[in-house]
Amino acid sequence: MSLSMISANRCFSGTQYVYRHASAATQTDMTFAAYLPEQAEHGPCPTLFFLSGLTCSEENATVKAGYQRVAAELGMIVIAPDTSPRGETVPNDERYFLGQAASFYLDATQAPWSQHYQMERYIVQELYDLVLDALPVEAGKIGITGHSMGGHGALTLAMRNPDRFASLSAFAPVVAPSQVEWGQVAFSAYFGQDQAAWAAHDACALVGSHGWKGDMLIDQGDGDAFLETNLRTPLFEAACQQADQSALIRYQPGYDHSYYFVASFMEEHMRFHAERLG
Amino acid sequence: MSLSMISANRCFSGTQYVYRHASAATQTDMTFAAYLPEQAEHGPCPTLFFLSGLTCSEENATVKAGYQRVAAELGMIVIAPDTSPRGETVPNDERYFLGQAASFYLDATQAPWSQHYQMERYIVQELYDLVLDALPVEAGKIGITGHSMGGHGALTLAMRNPDRFASLSAFAPVVAPSQVEWGQVAFSAYFGQDQAAWAAHDACALVGSHGWKGDMLIDQGDGDAFLETNLRTPLFEAACQQADQSALIRYQPGYDHSYYFVASFMEEHMRFHAERLG
Repeated sequence: MSLSMISANRCFSGTQYVYRHASAATQTDMTFAAYLPEQAEHGPCPTLFFLSGLTCSEENATVKAGYQRVAAELGMIVIAPDTSPRGETVPNDERYFLGQAASFYLDATQAPWSQHYQMERYIVQELYDLVLDALPVEAGKIGITGHSMGGHGALTLAMRNPDRFASLSAFAPVVAPSQVEWGQVAFSAYFGQDQAAWAAHDACALVGSHGWKGDMLIDQGDGDAFLETNLRTPLFEAACQQADQSALIRYQPGYDHSYYFVASFMEEHMRFHAERLG
Repeated sequence: MSLSMISANRCFSGTQYVYRHASAATQTDMTFAAYLPEQAEHGPCPTLFFLSGLTCSEENATVKAGYQRVAAELGMIVIAPDTSPRGETVPNDERYFLGQAASFYLDATQAPWSQHYQMERYIVQELYDLVLDALPVEAGKIGITGHSMGGHGALTLAMRNPDRFASLSAFAPVVAPSQVEWGQVAFSAYFGQDQAAWAAHDACALVGSHGWKGDMLIDQGDGDAFLETNLRTPLFEAACQQADQSALIRYQPGYDHSYYFVASFMEEHMRFHAERLG
């Protein structure tokens, strides 16, 4: 499997790369961003996956979240994948919470989605193995975080694949997709009415059925316009309490759903991961 | 004169605003970004103007340069103006270095540009007085910086209006517009062949004719694709040496012209200004 370099920009003494590669999982080309700090020139580094939210690509966090400065200090690689397969032949929907840029990081079972929308397999197996092989990523020291739909991705992929990830956090995650419009529309399309599949990709259900092996950090703006309708953080608080799951869930006063919120707390999340990745 | 708030996002315990207002100078509505740190709730703060480059608006630096974190720490307001008047009735050109988003921060004397392209007057008088009046900007503690065409703007506006600005820096500035295509095309359009006007807006000429009352900090990536053709930093080094002008001009190895470069050195520039603004 080979990587094509789309761009390389010097940034905080390291390099921000964007790569493209042919994906067997999605049967499309896929793009991802990779920040390599200067330390990566001398040996393998702990690595953080950042999964982005609805309407985003790998670019949003890469230009807006300001992670490079902290990654440079900590000697951490940051991998920001795209949010779905893309292209004219890839099914889509006019609603922003279904189809391209709205994969929900799962492996769809229903036509027409199942051919290309294999994003759990893509992230956890294909891209994961690819960056381990092609970049100086240190095996066993890989954490995962994400924003909104990407926070859902981080929580569910980590709890479903605890052997792949060593640390976990999220920004304003979708925690109960089975109970909100964003998730119900997507899960109905991707899984049909298979309620077992829904539960297996719902963070509130997973924290009871699987749990997470460590602690986790979640930040949520209390001025986030999606909090009441589609994020519903208190459901996850209750589920963690019920399951005796260690989780630090913070409501940040006045913050909204934008990358201004993500950027404000990015450094704390990266230090959280760095401490746990060692 | 009244400000309409376009957006307000909590960011690093302060607020990132975008405002619009009717401009007498440009005879259009103008938009600008203003970051107010938490300290601005308690009293006036030192303030930095950031002028952006060709093709940009107030948005680029605001979402990409990462200035809010440092501004929050230093208690500094950051004002990021738009790069030109805009609108269907405002003259434009298909070349990216003339017309909308390419004002070169001067007051045009030639038709059809002169009606709206009055950007020096807009920045140095109208917007300057507006933010002093409407925001908790501390009089006498206002610095200026910018990127590329905005670096040209910072250098020329500061040297031409030393009573208005107390500190000066630039990222990859256009230093000799009279000698490069970007500037020659723009100056020919905006000023015609009035060579005195050209010299009065050319940093290399101004450093000899006016100089700058203090020191200045300039960063330039040595991997910048525009360095040889349109930036030509060595001409400014020579002009400063000739005029005995204090200037720290640094070539940063491997950095290009992008906001990844700006973000990498933003903190150092902001600390440079904070020290001089006191």
